[in-house]
Amino acid sequence: MSKVLSTNPVTGTASALGFDETSAEEVAQMGRRSLGASSLFATRSLEWRAGLLEALANALDEGASDIIATAMEETGLAEGRLAGELRRTSFQFRFFSSVVRDGGFLEASIDHAADSPMGPLPDLRRQLEPLGPVAVFGASNFPLAFSVPGGDTASALAAGCSVITKAHPAHPKTSLLCFRALRDAATAQGAPDGLLECVFGLEAGLALVDDVNVRAVGFTGSYRAGRLLFDRTQARTVPIPFYGELGSVNALVVTAPAASARASEIGPAMVASVTLGAGQFCTKPGLLFVPSGRDGDGLVESARQAMTAVSGATMLSSAIRDHYDAGVTALLATPGVELLARGAVGPGPSGAGAVLLEIALDTLRGPGASVLDTECFGAVAVVVRYGDDGDLFEVLKNLEPALTFTVHAESDDELGPSLINLGRQLAGRVIVNGYPTGVGVSWSMHHGGPHPATTSPLHTSVGATSIRRWLRPVSYQSVPDSWLPESVQEDNPLGIVRRVDGRLRS
Amino acid sequence: MSKVLSTNPVTGTASALGFDETSAEEVAQMGRRSLGASSLFATRSLEWRAGLLEALANALDEGASDIIATAMEETGLAEGRLAGELRRTSFQFRFFSSVVRDGGFLEASIDHAADSPMGPLPDLRRQLEPLGPVAVFGASNFPLAFSVPGGDTASALAAGCSVITKAHPAHPKTSLLCFRALRDAATAQGAPDGLLECVFGLEAGLALVDDVNVRAVGFTGSYRAGRLLFDRTQARTVPIPFYGELGSVNALVVTAPAASARASEIGPAMVASVTLGAGQFCTKPGLLFVPSGRDGDGLVESARQAMTAVSGATMLSSAIRDHYDAGVTALLATPGVELLARGAVGPGPSGAGAVLLEIALDTLRGPGASVLDTECFGAVAVVVRYGDDGDLFEVLKNLEPALTFTVHAESDDELGPSLINLGRQLAGRVIVNGYPTGVGVSWSMHHGGPHPATTSPLHTSVGATSIRRWLRPVSYQSVPDSWLPESVQEDNPLGIVRRVDGRLRS
Repeated sequence: MSKVLSTNPVTGTASALGFDETSAEEVAQMGRRSLGASSLFATRSLEWRAGLLEALANALDEGASDIIATAMEETGLAEGRLAGELRRTSFQFRFFSSVVRDGGFLEASIDHAADSPMGPLPDLRRQLEPLGPVAVFGASNFPLAFSVPGGDTASALAAGCSVITKAHPAHPKTSLLCFRALRDAATAQGAPDGLLECVFGLEAGLALVDDVNVRAVGFTGSYRAGRLLFDRTQARTVPIPFYGELGSVNALVVTAPAASARASEIGPAMVASVTLGAGQFCTKPGLLFVPSGRDGDGLVESARQAMTAVSGATMLSSAIRDHYDAGVTALLATPGVELLARGAVGPGPSGAGAVLLEIALDTLRGPGASVLDTECFGAVAVVVRYGDDGDLFEVLKNLEPALTFTVHAESDDELGPSLINLGRQLAGRVIVNGYPTGVGVSWSMHHGGPHPATTSPLHTSVGATSIRRWLRPVSYQSVPDSWLPESVQEDNPLGIVRRVDGRLRS
Repeated sequence: MSKVLSTNPVTGTASALGFDETSAEEVAQMGRRSLGASSLFATRSLEWRAGLLEALANALDEGASDIIATAMEETGLAEGRLAGELRRTSFQFRFFSSVVRDGGFLEASIDHAADSPMGPLPDLRRQLEPLGPVAVFGASNFPLAFSVPGGDTASALAAGCSVITKAHPAHPKTSLLCFRALRDAATAQGAPDGLLECVFGLEAGLALVDDVNVRAVGFTGSYRAGRLLFDRTQARTVPIPFYGELGSVNALVVTAPAASARASEIGPAMVASVTLGAGQFCTKPGLLFVPSGRDGDGLVESARQAMTAVSGATMLSSAIRDHYDAGVTALLATPGVELLARGAVGPGPSGAGAVLLEIALDTLRGPGASVLDTECFGAVAVVVRYGDDGDLFEVLKNLEPALTFTVHAESDDELGPSLINLGRQLAGRVIVNGYPTGVGVSWSMHHGGPHPATTSPLHTSVGATSIRRWLRPVSYQSVPDSWLPESVQEDNPLGIVRRVDGRLRS
């Protein structure tokens, strides 16, 4: 087996972590342990589960300085950014402990025996139950919030599932550190052995999605890798749900009234969103629709100036930087695309410079069409100048689905409602007068979208309802009260909101 | 193209319906019409949608005598059974109109702008929205309740989706009659053109699951056909959700105390469940675990007598009857399997006789193992005689997942809780002291199960929550109130239950 290596993207130095990539046999062992752990975990109370999630949050906070220092070395991300990401990551565990205590996620429902037009119906009670072992593939761009200790892990544990994480090769040391912090905290809480496992290496990842004991997969990453793993899970003898959050080309539209009213505000803010974290966000706005004419010109000029002033960044790895450079080169070679501005290039073998491009909307319906569906991971965006609103809508209607759709409009803007209506069909989140790069953890967040943004349009990878991915319904017919799960026992010992005879009751 | 033929399974007579199977070009046209209809349908109010569902229910009731007479000719099912199935089918539309009016299915959620450990969060609102055109493949065994006018169609319309049904070749005339009744009623309500479409023929069905405008598929039928279509949907350039309800080998366990207390009641009742509708139910109990010893002997003897008295039935088609006969022959040829009883054979080319078999549990761990996962569609079941409870659990633990798991136990039965706990891991519905063949339409019903029972363990094909299959989340960030969908506008114009700042409120 190959040694696991940790690479510093700023210096290019690689160092061995002192152990080999996980073997197929070890993966199979972990799968069996994970299955055993999931059975035991399912017998613990919701209160115990909520306490476990809090203990995991505390462990991450306690390990913060080590974790952040290690992640800085491996990812080139700045301390402030990683400290913020760690706060988000531990908050996510605490948030899910509140989701568990709330109990609404169980969708508990009771229908007492009754007559119906179909004849007498028996007593029937339903709740959602954990699927079993879940595999989680961490993303490169969020070494904490979407990786080993990320939202997929937190939501799967909240659902009552055991978790086997796959460490991302761009930050194996950070992954190991986080995994140990979580596992040790779980052990200290008395969690069953095998509740958390972690594999390293590409082959181990493939063995994991094939493993007979794995019941679902969470993945955040590129379309190419995601589709490959998706296809693999669907071709299994027993196919399993694959939740791939794959990124997208996110559109941002500025209406003429908005450009007229806020050109000097929107231009720099839009560039800030494009270049945040070296553009390494799946929600980065990649297509910026700006009206032609004087107001649009002013907005583009302020964006151009902002982009020129952007300081150089270090990307997550030299491979990712090379991919970014190739993407920018391809965009620049597309007929009709012009260079508007370049930022400074960051230091080291993963250093990159942000780029702002421009194209006329008319060109998009001809030779420049490929610009519309080319996601380039990194700090590049294409300004699309449009004249006629009808032409704008014609192009927008044919965009590929995406994670987000952003509209800048004035309150009396005639285009507002139709842009919202278009956005809801194209994307998972519609934003007005803001920027898509912030993805808050809350009850109402949806982070997902139709294919190719995700492989599963029905579910979110962020927020309270992401727990639904790891749960399946079970109905109990005429089961004696004392044999029922507490959630659906008659006197509601958990004190949760339930649907009783068709009506929600607290 | 081939002519569409309607065959009478009692007489074997086939007659042409006077039109050809649907061509690939016609399917593509329907897909485009359906997409257009789904966009228009999404703009109608929930109240209008609820009214539409009621009108469709009324249309089925009004057409009852024609529909039932036609279905009798095509399926060999009795008038009483079909009249009951039609009542269930129109009830299903009315039930979903109440689900639509309730509005809880939208999962409307509002998070007002607030501070968080991640910094300030913007105003965020979420609801579920229709996926778009849905393809529905009708099942052979329920020409109404799980076919063109069945639960998939009703729940998809309730979700706000347009529907293209695929008529089952075992009842094309019934399908056409029901389709016309629904479509004409929809037109009379002012529904958009193309809201309901119907295709005929195998090739048309394949074209339908490949169609670029189809967003999801509902299917009820055999594992073989279901898996083929599932694979096809997952291999599309844009994969789509495929909800296949594929049937299963359903276990029923009688504990020793239950056999002791209720042998003469359980024996005949269990046979009645096996032979209901010629055994053509995906929930038919196929494995009947009965204790050895005197109480078990008494139970088996009463079952044997009941089976001997079962009158002959006509199956849905001669092909299905041939398949049933082959299945029984294979079971009889399995080492250790013995014939307990045969019922009379029904008339005509699709006539069949019910069969009760027996095997000792020990044999199942050796040469008779294949009995455990051989679903035989039709009125056959295998009685498994067990001695030791530990041996019983060892076999049960390794059963293939199923739609249902049934336990007959006494109230102070020591095995009760552990059997329930096993059942919830194996199946979608756990039944105590009842029979699995009735599947009521209600809020708490779950009709589904882990693979191979279904292709999607997360969702049900019956009951209120089956609507969730056709919905995707959309979040609205900082969108002005008047541009929001009504469900998430601040003053709650729909008057529905919503989660506001994390708390459910009505």
